[in-house]
Amino acid sequence: MKNIKIVMEFDGKNYKGWQIQKNGISVQQVVEEAIGLITQEKIAIIGVSRTDSGVHAKEYVANFLTSSSIPPERFYAAINIRLPRDIIVISSEEVDLKFNARYCSLGKTYCYTILNRKLPPVLYRDYVYHIKYKLDAVKMEEASKYFLGMHDFSSFKSRGGSTRTSIRTIKELYIKTSGDIIKIYITGDGFLYNMVRIIVGTLVEVGLNRISVKMVEEILDAKDRNKSGKCVPAKGLCLEKVYY
Amino acid sequence: MKNIKIVMEFDGKNYKGWQIQKNGISVQQVVEEAIGLITQEKIAIIGVSRTDSGVHAKEYVANFLTSSSIPPERFYAAINIRLPRDIIVISSEEVDLKFNARYCSLGKTYCYTILNRKLPPVLYRDYVYHIKYKLDAVKMEEASKYFLGMHDFSSFKSRGGSTRTSIRTIKELYIKTSGDIIKIYITGDGFLYNMVRIIVGTLVEVGLNRISVKMVEEILDAKDRNKSGKCVPAKGLCLEKVYY
Repeated sequence: MKNIKIVMEFDGKNYKGWQIQKNGISVQQVVEEAIGLITQEKIAIIGVSRTDSGVHAKEYVANFLTSSSIPPERFYAAINIRLPRDIIVISSEEVDLKFNARYCSLGKTYCYTILNRKLPPVLYRDYVYHIKYKLDAVKMEEASKYFLGMHDFSSFKSRGGSTRTSIRTIKELYIKTSGDIIKIYITGDGFLYNMVRIIVGTLVEVGLNRISVKMVEEILDAKDRNKSGKCVPAKGLCLEKVYY
Repeated sequence: MKNIKIVMEFDGKNYKGWQIQKNGISVQQVVEEAIGLITQEKIAIIGVSRTDSGVHAKEYVANFLTSSSIPPERFYAAINIRLPRDIIVISSEEVDLKFNARYCSLGKTYCYTILNRKLPPVLYRDYVYHIKYKLDAVKMEEASKYFLGMHDFSSFKSRGGSTRTSIRTIKELYIKTSGDIIKIYITGDGFLYNMVRIIVGTLVEVGLNRISVKMVEEILDAKDRNKSGKCVPAKGLCLEKVYY
């Protein structure tokens, strides 16, 4: 039995997220079926994390066990032949049997993209969240400092997650502005359900001057989801990097 | 009678280019019909230039005559209500009756985007041309110098164009590389049929070491379409700016 680690890229538009769902097609299902066709086994892939319906990934890591004799480093090409145009396996390699894409992950970087202009997006419209009122990126940058470090992120999770603790560590959070595009990069050891999207939603409240920079600290301390901003749409979110 | 100048953005994926065609839907047709619905007139729009089927535009300029009493600077919002998600009017204003979007244009900037990696594109796949072999961007940059200035671009036009002369002036041509994305920006006073796509196709030949840098000068001098590179796909091309 071999343990194969694969790195994927996918466009989340047409999927109900990574994890297999009853009410729609997930990325996991499509990839498992593709591998199953090649190996003639029933494959169970372990992904680095769930992703919400519609979220994209530039780098998504997963692993699966197989008795197939296909050389591990050639697996990716064989799988790609069976995948639709919106999912691709970038690389494949054999790893230690103890490697688990989910539990061995040390952290992830997400990027959230906002189009900040009066008119709705046309080009790249499946990859951005549109905000028509002018955002104050400098204030958003200031407010982002409060998230850095280890905190109880109870104010920044949706109901329905199933984690023991709400304590997470944000290692980096920065904002890059280029014309009317604002990109928010967040790196952490782990994220609660909808955490990135609620953090961005709260930074947007700051950028719109609806709440003060200082208020973000109070929201964190409150440990109350009712205090934070809205959960911004999935299509602006992309998993950029996974660390092991 | 008023002359209204409009600036548009469009995603060319689902259109047979700007100009009205018999065999498919064009951007011009969709915009003319939208304006006609508002003004109850038969509208004829003049666009800055034809664009090939599938080409995108961040800034496309056009004008039309109307007797409508809608304030010119509010026209854009009224038109947008009647447009699909892949076309938008960014602004509208009244201009001199002598203004003609095509004949008054002093030049345009195009951007051509290449994804240069082994595997096909997944994210943003409708906006890039994929080249799997490694391109030498430094050589492409060197070769691009030959295009600068006024030349007879007969080697860089497809049959079917209807222009008096093949002489054009390229004012700027530069290449920006970021990771596996290569962007080629070309500014000129005007472009022959498929000229940008054939120039890029020829630079790609240089980048793949199939022809030498110096060879580009010879291809220009030859005034022979058979000597230049292929016409690269439309989806990588975007009209970035129009000058008046």
